[in-house]
Amino acid sequence: MKIGLIGFGRAGKSVASVLLRTKETSLEWVLRKSHKLEHHSAPEFLGIETDQPGLIYSVQDIAISTLLDIQPVDIIIDFASEDAIYFYGDEAANRKVKILSAISHYSEETKSKLKELSKSTVVFWSPNITLGINYLIIVAKFLKKIAPNVDFVIVEEHFKEKKEVSGTAKVIAKELNLDELEIKSIRAGSIIGRHEIICGFPFQTVRLIHESVSREAFGHGALFVALNLINKEPGFYQFEELLLPYFSI
Amino acid sequence: MKIGLIGFGRAGKSVASVLLRTKETSLEWVLRKSHKLEHHSAPEFLGIETDQPGLIYSVQDIAISTLLDIQPVDIIIDFASEDAIYFYGDEAANRKVKILSAISHYSEETKSKLKELSKSTVVFWSPNITLGINYLIIVAKFLKKIAPNVDFVIVEEHFKEKKEVSGTAKVIAKELNLDELEIKSIRAGSIIGRHEIICGFPFQTVRLIHESVSREAFGHGALFVALNLINKEPGFYQFEELLLPYFSI
Amino acid sequence: MKIGLIGFGRAGKSVASVLLRTKETSLEWVLRKSHKLEHHSAPEFLGIETDQPGLIYSVQDIAISTLLDIQPVDIIIDFASEDAIYFYGDEAANRKVKILSAISHYSEETKSKLKELSKSTVVFWSPNITLGINYLIIVAKFLKKIAPNVDFVIVEEHFKEKKEVSGTAKVIAKELNLDELEIKSIRAGSIIGRHEIICGFPFQTVRLIHESVSREAFGHGALFVALNLINKEPGFYQFEELLLPYFSI
Amino acid sequence: MKIGLIGFGRAGKSVASVLLRTKETSLEWVLRKSHKLEHHSAPEFLGIETDQPGLIYSVQDIAISTLLDIQPVDIIIDFASEDAIYFYGDEAANRKVKILSAISHYSEETKSKLKELSKSTVVFWSPNITLGINYLIIVAKFLKKIAPNVDFVIVEEHFKEKKEVSGTAKVIAKELNLDELEIKSIRAGSIIGRHEIICGFPFQTVRLIHESVSREAFGHGALFVALNLINKEPGFYQFEELLLPYFSI
Repeated sequence: MKIGLIGFGRAGKSVASVLLRTKETSLEWVLRKSHKLEHHSAPEFLGIETDQPGLIYSVQDIAISTLLDIQPVDIIIDFASEDAIYFYGDEAANRKVKILSAISHYSEETKSKLKELSKSTVVFWSPNITLGINYLIIVAKFLKKIAPNVDFVIVEEHFKEKKEVSGTAKVIAKELNLDELEIKSIRAGSIIGRHEIICGFPFQTVRLIHESVSREAFGHGALFVALNLINKEPGFYQFEELLLPYFSI
Repeated sequence: MKIGLIGFGRAGKSVASVLLRTKETSLEWVLRKSHKLEHHSAPEFLGIETDQPGLIYSVQDIAISTLLDIQPVDIIIDFASEDAIYFYGDEAANRKVKILSAISHYSEETKSKLKELSKSTVVFWSPNITLGINYLIIVAKFLKKIAPNVDFVIVEEHFKEKKEVSGTAKVIAKELNLDELEIKSIRAGSIIGRHEIICGFPFQTVRLIHESVSREAFGHGALFVALNLINKEPGFYQFEELLLPYFSI
Repeated sequence: MKIGLIGFGRAGKSVASVLLRTKETSLEWVLRKSHKLEHHSAPEFLGIETDQPGLIYSVQDIAISTLLDIQPVDIIIDFASEDAIYFYGDEAANRKVKILSAISHYSEETKSKLKELSKSTVVFWSPNITLGINYLIIVAKFLKKIAPNVDFVIVEEHFKEKKEVSGTAKVIAKELNLDELEIKSIRAGSIIGRHEIICGFPFQTVRLIHESVSREAFGHGALFVALNLINKEPGFYQFEELLLPYFSI
Repeated sequence: MKIGLIGFGRAGKSVASVLLRTKETSLEWVLRKSHKLEHHSAPEFLGIETDQPGLIYSVQDIAISTLLDIQPVDIIIDFASEDAIYFYGDEAANRKVKILSAISHYSEETKSKLKELSKSTVVFWSPNITLGINYLIIVAKFLKKIAPNVDFVIVEEHFKEKKEVSGTAKVIAKELNLDELEIKSIRAGSIIGRHEIICGFPFQTVRLIHESVSREAFGHGALFVALNLINKEPGFYQFEELLLPYFSI
C-alpha cells in the first residue's frame, strides 16, 4: 500500500515517523504548504533508515496531478487543514485513490464535499484518529445499551494552558447523549491528555480510561485505518464502521 | 417473573435484598440448608417493605417438588453450593423452570449435568455474575481482536487476608490467552475488590477498571441475567451470549 | 484507656464496632438519645465477643454525672450531634475527662464553648475523623510549600444521590487556598467516597487519592486520635497538631 | 547563580532545555565527552532564545581548570556518567564550586570520593532527581511512622521493553523497609513511567501516584535542588534533607 501524506506540521511529522517505521506500507511522498525542506525527504529529516522514499514537495511548486503521475499512491492521508481537500480531493477521486482525513473540524459545506467525493472513492474521516479513543467511545455506547440506567461522567485532563473543553470529550458526550455539563475538565501541569469515562453502576463502578503518551498515536491510528480500508468499496466511512466488525465472536 | 432463590448465605442475602427492592420480578421463596429463620421471610429479615412473599424454607423440611407445587416460579437462582443443582435440577428441568447458577466453581461432572439439564430448559451459568466484570471481559476480548499486538496486564487488588489469586482475574487471563503470570495481585488493607486490565498500545494506554462497592452487585447481575433469559429457548448460556446482541448498532 | 461513646447512629455503631475489636482501649458505655436498646450492650447488639462492657444508656434516664460516677472514663468520644457537648462538656471538663468530638459542623458559639472547655481538659475536634483524609490534607499543604507553582485540582466522587459538594473537599480547598471552583464533583452509581488531589507539576503529575471503604474508618480514626491524646496537656487540638510530630526524621 | 552542566546526552539536553527557559539561573556552559556540537551553544542547538551563553565544550579539548577560569560558575550539575566526578570534582571542591550529581548509580569507592569532596564544598547526590518522586518517598515514610500497620505495595509501570525492575521502585521499597517482592512491575506499550504506592489502611485506601510526562522533569528537579543549595554550608546532602524543612507549619 503506497501512501501520500498531506501536511507536515507537528502531527504530520509524527504520522510520518510512524509510517516510516512500519513495513506494511510505503510512504511515497509528503506534500506540504511551505517551501521548507523541499527536495529533502521525510526519512532524512526524521533520521529514520528505510527504503521508503518519503520525498517532500510543496504545493507551491507541484500540481497534485503531476505528483500522482510521477509517484502514484493508493491512499492519501490528510493531516493538513480544512481546505486541503479542495486541493487534492477531485484528482484523488478521479483516480480512485482513497482518502483518509484526520482534520479535526470541517464546515458543513466541506462535509458535503467529502460525501460527494465518496461516490467515486473510499473517503474516511475521523476528527480524532487515535485507536484507543475510538475504541472507548464505541464500547461506552454499547455499555449504555446494555445498562441504560448507568450514570456516565466524563473527566478530561490536559495541561494547564489548554483553554477550551477537549473536543474528544465533547464527541464522547455527544455519542452517549450526555449534556456537556457532564464533562469535568481538569487543567494542571503538563498532562498530555487523559480521558476517563466513569460508569456508575449500582454497587460497582467501571472506569474506561485513555491516556495519551505522544502524538505518534495519530500515526498508529492512521495506519490502522489505512489497513482496514484496503478492500472497502467506494463510500463514506467513519471509525465506528471500521471497528464494528470486530465486535462479534 | 417469579423467582425462587437457593442459598441464603452472605451472597444470597445480598441478592435477595436487591430482588426485593425491584418491581420487575417477584421473589417467591428462599430455600436454604439450615433451619435458621424458617417460617420467617426474607423481607422481614432484611427489613424491606414489599409485597413479595420471599418465604424462607429449609431443604431439610420440604421437597423441591412440593415447593414448586405450592409456590411455582419461572426461574431458580442458585447462590448455594456446587451440589445444590442435584437437589433441584431435575425437577426444575422437568417443569421447564429456568436455572440461573452463580456458583463459582463446578466439577467437570457437574458441568455435564448442567449441559444435560439444558436440553429441557434454559440453563445459565456464570462464575462471576456481576455485570461490570462480564462487560469488561468481553470488551477486552474484542480489543485483542482489534489490536492483537497490544500488551495486556491484569492487576487485581483485594483485602490483605485474601490468600489466593482472584478467580475473576484468572478468568480474564484465560479469555485473553494470557499467562497467569501476567496477573499482578495486590493485597492491602480493606480493598473490597478492584480489577484493572491495562492495555498498552503504542503511544497510548487504555485502562479498563472494575471496582466492587458491595456484594449487592451480585443481585444486580442476577437480575440482569434473569430479565435477559425471558424469551430464550432451552439451552446452555453463559454471560457472553447474553451480552453479544448489544454489541451492534 | 477507658472510653465513653456519645451517639449510636450509623457512625456511632461503626465506631463502637471498631473500639470493641481492639484491646488497646475499653469501651465502658454508650450514651444515646433514644430509649432503644437500653439495658442492652453494644457488644451484644453488634455480636462481638469481648470483655468490654459497652453498656447502652439513654440521656433521658441518666445524668452524665451519675454515669461518670458509676463508670468513670478517661475520654468521651462524641459522634452524636452539635448540641451534645452542652450535655456532657462541663461535667467532663470538671473531671479532666478528655473530649474527642467528630461532629461535622459547629456554630461559632459552640466552637467558643469548646475553646472554653479546653482550658480545663484536652479538647479535640475534627469534622472528618478519618486518618487517611487528614494525612492527605497535611501532605498536600506541605507540597504547596515545596512547590508553590504546582496546580492543584480536587476531584471528589460520591454516589448519585449525594446533593451537595463534599464537605471534606471544601476543607481541602480551604487548606490549599483554592477557590471552591477547583473542586470537581462527580456523582455516579454507588461510589462510597473518593477524593483525589491532582498536583500538576511541570513535566510530571502527582496524585494523592483517598478511597473510603466503609464507615468503620471513623472508628479507626477516633482510636488513633484517642491514643495520641494520652499524654497531652489541657488545650484545644485539631488533627494537624497530632500528625505534625510524625513529620520529622 | 551561574551553572555549568556536565553531560549532554538525552537527560543532559532535557536539563539544559529547562535551565535555559528560566531566569532564576544562568547556564554558562555545557561540558561533554564527544567533540560533537563543539563551538556551538546549547541555546542554538535547542532553538531557545535566551541571553544565557550555554557554550558547548568537549573534555577532549579543555581542562576543567581552564574552563572554570574563563567561565566561572557557582554550581556544577552532573548528568554525565559515574566517572565524571573524577574529572571535575577536585577542581570544583578547591574553588568551593557546589556539586550537584544526578548520576543514578555510584560504586562505594566513588561515594567515598563524594563524601571527601563534601568536606570542602556542598555536594548533593540524588539517583532520581525528580521532585515528585522524592516528595512521594518522604511522605510515604512519614505515613509509615503515623500508621505502622498500614500495608504498603508498590506498583511501577513502564514501556514494554524495559527489562529490569525500576530503580526508583527499589529505592521506595528500601525507604519503606519493604521486601522487593512487594514491587509489582507492569510492562505494557509506551508507558513513560508511573509509580504508585498503595497504602492499605483498615476501611480506607490511600494511593500516592507519580506519573512522568517527560525527561524535562529532571531539569525541573535539578533547578529546585540548585536553588535550595544556595545558602548551604559545605557537606553532603541528599533530597530528603532539602525537603525536610518544608514539613513544618
